[in-house]
Amino acid sequence: MTGNSFGRIFRVTTWGESHGEAMGVVVDGCPAGLELSEADIQRELERRKPGVSEITTARKEADEVKILSGIFDGKTLGTPISMLVWNKDVDSSPYESLKDIARPGQADLTYQLKYGIRDYRGGGRASGRETVARVAAGAIAKKILASHAIQILGHVVEVGGIRARNVSKPLQGFRGQRGGAPLVEEIIRNAESTAVRCADLEAARRMEALITEVKEEGDSVGGIVEVIALGVPAGLGEPVFDKLDAELSKALMSIGAVKGVEIGAGFEAAGMKGSEMNDELYLQEGTIRTRTNNAGGILGGISTGEPIRCRIAVKPTSSISKPQRSVDLEKMEEVEITITGRHDPCICPRIVPVAEAMVALVLIDYLLRAPGR
Amino acid sequence: MTGNSFGRIFRVTTWGESHGEAMGVVVDGCPAGLELSEADIQRELERRKPGVSEITTARKEADEVKILSGIFDGKTLGTPISMLVWNKDVDSSPYESLKDIARPGQADLTYQLKYGIRDYRGGGRASGRETVARVAAGAIAKKILASHAIQILGHVVEVGGIRARNVSKPLQGFRGQRGGAPLVEEIIRNAESTAVRCADLEAARRMEALITEVKEEGDSVGGIVEVIALGVPAGLGEPVFDKLDAELSKALMSIGAVKGVEIGAGFEAAGMKGSEMNDELYLQEGTIRTRTNNAGGILGGISTGEPIRCRIAVKPTSSISKPQRSVDLEKMEEVEITITGRHDPCICPRIVPVAEAMVALVLIDYLLRAPGR
Amino acid sequence: MTGNSFGRIFRVTTWGESHGEAMGVVVDGCPAGLELSEADIQRELERRKPGVSEITTARKEADEVKILSGIFDGKTLGTPISMLVWNKDVDSSPYESLKDIARPGQADLTYQLKYGIRDYRGGGRASGRETVARVAAGAIAKKILASHAIQILGHVVEVGGIRARNVSKPLQGFRGQRGGAPLVEEIIRNAESTAVRCADLEAARRMEALITEVKEEGDSVGGIVEVIALGVPAGLGEPVFDKLDAELSKALMSIGAVKGVEIGAGFEAAGMKGSEMNDELYLQEGTIRTRTNNAGGILGGISTGEPIRCRIAVKPTSSISKPQRSVDLEKMEEVEITITGRHDPCICPRIVPVAEAMVALVLIDYLLRAPGR
Amino acid sequence: MTGNSFGRIFRVTTWGESHGEAMGVVVDGCPAGLELSEADIQRELERRKPGVSEITTARKEADEVKILSGIFDGKTLGTPISMLVWNKDVDSSPYESLKDIARPGQADLTYQLKYGIRDYRGGGRASGRETVARVAAGAIAKKILASHAIQILGHVVEVGGIRARNVSKPLQGFRGQRGGAPLVEEIIRNAESTAVRCADLEAARRMEALITEVKEEGDSVGGIVEVIALGVPAGLGEPVFDKLDAELSKALMSIGAVKGVEIGAGFEAAGMKGSEMNDELYLQEGTIRTRTNNAGGILGGISTGEPIRCRIAVKPTSSISKPQRSVDLEKMEEVEITITGRHDPCICPRIVPVAEAMVALVLIDYLLRAPGR
Repeated sequence: MTGNSFGRIFRVTTWGESHGEAMGVVVDGCPAGLELSEADIQRELERRKPGVSEITTARKEADEVKILSGIFDGKTLGTPISMLVWNKDVDSSPYESLKDIARPGQADLTYQLKYGIRDYRGGGRASGRETVARVAAGAIAKKILASHAIQILGHVVEVGGIRARNVSKPLQGFRGQRGGAPLVEEIIRNAESTAVRCADLEAARRMEALITEVKEEGDSVGGIVEVIALGVPAGLGEPVFDKLDAELSKALMSIGAVKGVEIGAGFEAAGMKGSEMNDELYLQEGTIRTRTNNAGGILGGISTGEPIRCRIAVKPTSSISKPQRSVDLEKMEEVEITITGRHDPCICPRIVPVAEAMVALVLIDYLLRAPGR
Repeated sequence: MTGNSFGRIFRVTTWGESHGEAMGVVVDGCPAGLELSEADIQRELERRKPGVSEITTARKEADEVKILSGIFDGKTLGTPISMLVWNKDVDSSPYESLKDIARPGQADLTYQLKYGIRDYRGGGRASGRETVARVAAGAIAKKILASHAIQILGHVVEVGGIRARNVSKPLQGFRGQRGGAPLVEEIIRNAESTAVRCADLEAARRMEALITEVKEEGDSVGGIVEVIALGVPAGLGEPVFDKLDAELSKALMSIGAVKGVEIGAGFEAAGMKGSEMNDELYLQEGTIRTRTNNAGGILGGISTGEPIRCRIAVKPTSSISKPQRSVDLEKMEEVEITITGRHDPCICPRIVPVAEAMVALVLIDYLLRAPGR
Repeated sequence: MTGNSFGRIFRVTTWGESHGEAMGVVVDGCPAGLELSEADIQRELERRKPGVSEITTARKEADEVKILSGIFDGKTLGTPISMLVWNKDVDSSPYESLKDIARPGQADLTYQLKYGIRDYRGGGRASGRETVARVAAGAIAKKILASHAIQILGHVVEVGGIRARNVSKPLQGFRGQRGGAPLVEEIIRNAESTAVRCADLEAARRMEALITEVKEEGDSVGGIVEVIALGVPAGLGEPVFDKLDAELSKALMSIGAVKGVEIGAGFEAAGMKGSEMNDELYLQEGTIRTRTNNAGGILGGISTGEPIRCRIAVKPTSSISKPQRSVDLEKMEEVEITITGRHDPCICPRIVPVAEAMVALVLIDYLLRAPGR
Repeated sequence: MTGNSFGRIFRVTTWGESHGEAMGVVVDGCPAGLELSEADIQRELERRKPGVSEITTARKEADEVKILSGIFDGKTLGTPISMLVWNKDVDSSPYESLKDIARPGQADLTYQLKYGIRDYRGGGRASGRETVARVAAGAIAKKILASHAIQILGHVVEVGGIRARNVSKPLQGFRGQRGGAPLVEEIIRNAESTAVRCADLEAARRMEALITEVKEEGDSVGGIVEVIALGVPAGLGEPVFDKLDAELSKALMSIGAVKGVEIGAGFEAAGMKGSEMNDELYLQEGTIRTRTNNAGGILGGISTGEPIRCRIAVKPTSSISKPQRSVDLEKMEEVEITITGRHDPCICPRIVPVAEAMVALVLIDYLLRAPGR
C-alpha cells in the first residue's frame, strides 16, 4: 500500500534509501509560471545538512539537488517537478556487522516484520536522510507562500530540559504585527547564528554545552522545536476531518523523531479554565482580531488570520554509542550492541528546516484549493 | 473542497448540523458478512451522550441510531452502511440573540470568514454533536477490531491540573500482557463507574469536585485523555507520510477540542537521553519484545505489536456563562456577551468515546489494507 | 475497499439498496452560498422516473427527495449536503423465487462471488435504482454549471440499430455558437417530447415501434446516448492520467448498462487519416477556434472551449421475460428461468439524465479546482 | 492540481518532458520481496521503441532504464521504486520554428491556454514519449500479475479500415480455456512478428501496405487495438463508481491518442436484443461459466473470471507533413504550417504495449486490495 505521498493539490511523492543511488521527490500540482531554479532548492538543503556546526557533525553529505523535469526557461510548466540528490561517497561497511540486528529505537524491527526484507545500510528508507526530499519540496512550497506574504519560522526552544525564553511571544498576536517584521528577522538571525538553532543566545550556549556533554558520554538528547507561520490568510482548512490543525499534526508527526505535537496552547490548555483559554475578539482598524492566541491561529480547524503556532517534541537520537541490549533477528538471540561511527547527539537543529518544510507543504495545499464559496 | 471523509479503505463520511434534520454517516468499505445491528451502534452512542452523569449534563439528546443501508439479514453486504440520528426536540431560540456574534474560542468566526454563511444554531456543523457520527462509525470499526482481538481503552487521566495515578502503566509493556486482561477490565470498570471517566477513583472524586466548582463559577476546565490500543499486530502503518502515528495524530487532532497529541513518551521524550528513551529489545518465548514502551508501540511509523499509547490535550469548553468580550459580525462592533443555557463544564469524559472511535477508525483502515509483502 | 464515491473536489458518496430503507447521497465540497431547494433536485429526478412514458413503464417510484443537511435559509453552507429518497411501496415477493439464481447479464453472480452475500431483492445495490442518487447529486452540479453558462444536453441517438439524424451536428463547432441557443432549445424540447428521448421525431417514432415490438416478445433492446456539454471553458482537465476525457470515460462507464464510450469522432477516428481527423485552427474575432471538432472539445486531456461531445453504448436491459438458461447458486445446478414482472424494454431514455449527471459531476470537479497557473 | 498519478494501492507517478533531462516514474505500493531487475523493465521498453520496424521509424530512442530506489539484493523492499530513462541525443532544433504554433490535433493549444507556458520541444509533457514511464511501471505490474497466472495480450485488430480476422474469438470464452495457452502463444508470436503487431498475417500485410502509402502522402492513419486479460480471478472491481470497467476506461482513455473504449460487445451491444446480449450461465466441472462473453468478463463492475476484453480506437497520428492551417499563438494570426521530420504514420503498434501496461496497472491495483469479505 502507498504511503510516500503527501498533499492533495500540491502533491509530493518521495523515494530513496539512505545508501541507495539517490534520494528524490516528485512535486505534482505546482502552479505554472513560477520562477524556480536549483539554487532556490539548494538554499534550503544547506540548512538541513549535517556538519554545519561543530556540535552536530556526522556523515558528510554533498546534497546537490538536480531538477529533472517541470521547468522550462527558468519557470515551472505546471507539470511534475522531479528532483534528486545523488548519494555520494557512501560507506556502508559499518552497517555490515549490524545487518541482522534490530537497533533499539530504530525502525529496523518494524520494517523487517512488515516487509520481510530491509535495506540495513544507513537505516534504508527509514533514515533521517529521507528528509532531504521533504526539504526540497518544501523549498518550492515556501517560495510560493512567500509570494503570498506567508512566512514560516522555525527554531529550537528546548533541548534536554533547557528551555529558551519565549522569544516569539510578541509574534503570537494577530498577524504577527505586534512583534512585526524586525522581530521575525531578529529571531531568524539569532537562531541561525547558533549551532543549536536557538534564538535565545544564552540558552543556546547552555544547550550546546549539554549536547557536547552527552556526546562525550556516547549518548544523545531530545528537545522541542517551534514553528510559526505568519501572514496565513483566514479561511484555510477543511472541517471536519481535514482540519488545518489535523493536517499539521499528521505532517509534523510523520517526521521520524517526533513524539508529540501541540497547536497554540497545546498541553497547557488541559490545565486552563475556559475564561483563560478563550481568545477574546476585538476590532483593530476594521479587522477582527484576538487579544491572545491560545488557539494557535486555528478555530474549528480553519485559520483565523492570526499566526499559526505549532510545537513538536523531538526524541533523542536513537543511534548512540553506549552499549545496548537488543536482538539478532536472524539467529533470534539476545545480543549486546555498540553502534560505532559519528552520531548526531541532538537532531533538533536539523529538524527545524524539515518541520518548516512540512508546515509549508500543508499550507500550500490549502492555499491552492478552491475557496469555500 | 471536501473534508468530511476519513480513511482510505474503511471510509467514513459524516454530515449534519447540530440543529438541522439529522446527523449521519456513510461507512464505505466495511467487509461483507459482519453481523451488525443497531444495538451494536447504540451501545457506543450511549457512552457519548450528555447527561449520563450529574456533573456534565447539557442538552438532552435521544440519539437513536437508524441503519438505512448496507445490512441484509443482520449482516453487512459490503455496500455502504448509511446511518443517521434524527435531531429531536431541538430548541434553537437561545441562539437567536447570538446569531451575529462570534463567540470566543468557537468556530463562529472562521466559518463566517470561510463560507460567508453559517448555521449559528447550536454551533451548526462545528458543534460537538458532529461526533455522534464518528462514534457510530467507530462502533463498527471496534466490532471488527474486537474480532481480531484488538481492544481500545480510553479514560481521563487529568482534569484542570489534577492528575490521576498512572493506572495503565502495567499495560504499557509488550502486548499488554504484563497487566493482562483483568487489569484492562478493572480500568474500564472503574473509569466507566465515575462521572468523569477516570479510573483512579480518588482522583476522580477531586476532579468531580473541581468540575462542580468551575461550573458554579460559570467557567469550564480542560484535561487529558489517554487511549490505549491492545492487541494491535505488528506491521500496521505506511511510511513515510502515512505512518501510523501520523494518522493517529490527524485523527485525534480533528476532534474539536483537542490542542495536543502525544504518542508513547510524548513531550517527556524531549527531556530524555537516548539511553533512557530507547526501548531495549529482548526475547520472550520466541517473540521479540521491548522492556519499556516509550515508543508507544510504533517505530518508524509501523506498529511493533506493543500497546499503542496516545494522549490528547482537551481544552476547556468554549461555552461559558462568564461575560466575554467579542465582536458582532453584522454590525462590526465590539460587544460583551454572556452565553446562557446549560453548558458542559468539562467535556473530557465525553471525548473519551470519540477518541476511542478515532483510534479505531485509524486502526481498521490499516488492518484492512493489503500487507507489505 | 471503498468505491462508492466520485470526485475529488465536489465529492459524491452514494448509498442504498433497491429494496432497502432508502437511496441516498452525500455531496461534500459544494461551495457555500448557492441557493438550493428540494425542488431543484426533484426536477431532475422526475426525468429519470420510470413510467413517464407508455413504452418504458416499470416499477412505480415516488422518488421524493429530502435534503437533511448542508442547507440553511435556502442556501448551501459549504458543509456536506445529505439527500435521500425513501424506498416506498416496495414489493420484494417476486424476487423470492430468484433469490438463489444468478440472472444472466446481471451482477447477481459477481456480487455473490465477491461478497459471499447479496441483497437479491430488486438487484440490491446493483439495481439501476442506484442512479437516483447520481441524478440528485448531478442536479446540484448542473445548477452550479448553469451559473457559469455551462449547459449539458443529453439525448438518444440510436435504438436497436435505428439511427437518428445527426441533429446536434451544428452544435459541434466552437462553443456551440454555430447552432446557437435556439437549436439547443429545439433539440431538448424535441427529445423530451418523445417517450424515447430522441430529438429526431421521425426516428423516435420508429424507435418506439421497435421498443413496443421487443416488449411484446418479452425481449429488450439497446441503443446509443449522446451527451454534449456547451460553454465549457478552455483549460479543464489534468494530464496525464486525470485527463478530462479519461474522467468522462470512467464516469460514463460506471453507469450499469454502458459498454462503450466515445469522445468526439470516437471509433470513426480509427478509420480516418490524420489530415481528416486533425481539427484545423482559425481565428474568429480574436478567439482561437477549430473548424471541425473531431477532438470532441478535448486536446491532450484538456478542454479546448469547443463543445464536449461523448457517446455511450447502452446494452439491452438484462431483465427479459424470455426463458433463459442459468445456474442456481445454492444448489449449484443448471436451471431455466423466466423473469416475471414489468421490465423496461429499453432503458436508453432513462439513461439520458444519468449520463448528463455524470458529465456534470466530472465538469464541476474540474471547474472548482485551482487553475493551472 | 495533480493528475500525474494512477492507482490507489499500486500507485504510479510519472514525470518528464520529451526533450527535458529524463522521463521517469515512481511506483509506490509494490509488495516487498518481488525479484526485480532492470532487465525485467527493459524487455517491455523495447516493445514500445520506435524504429523496431521499417514502417514506423521515427526518433531514435535508446531508452535504457535505471532503477534508483526500492530494490535491494535483487528484490523489492516495499518502498517506492524510482525509475528513469535519460533523454539522450535530443535535437530540439526542428521545433524552434513551431514554438509559437498550435499544431492541429496536438495539445499545444490547450497546454498554452491552461498553463500560459509550455515546453514546445517535441510536445513537452504531452509527447507520446511520456508512455515510456507507463510501460516501465506496467512491466512491474505484469510481473506480479504473471505470478498470479494473469496474462495480458494486446494486438492491433484494425488499421485505417482494414479489419483483421477475429483471431482471439476462441479466447473470449470462460477463463480462456476454450482457446487455451497454445492459441495465446500463437497470437502473441504472430502479432509480435509483424511490424504492425497484427496477428492476422494476411491483414497485417495489407495494413503495412496502407501505412507505407499514407506515409508517402505525408499523412497518417488510425486503428483499433484489442487487449485481453486472461486468468483474472472473479471478484475484482469496486462498485458503484470504481467499477473494473470504469477504471479500465479511464486508464485506456488517458493514453494520448485514444478516442473510444469498448468493453466486451462494446458498441455492438447497442444494436443487440437482451436475449442475444445476455451471457447464459452453465456449470463446467463445478465452476459457473458463461457460454458467450458479451460482458467482456465484467458484470456489475466486478470481474466474472472470464477473460476481460477491451478495445480502443486510436486516432491517426497528429504529426503529418501535409500542409495544415493553424494559428500563431504569439502573433495571434492564422498561418499555414508543414511539420518536417520523421513521423510515425501509424502509432497503433506502439500503443499496444502502452495499452497492456494500463490494463496491468488497473488489474494490479484491484488484485492487491483487500477482498470484499
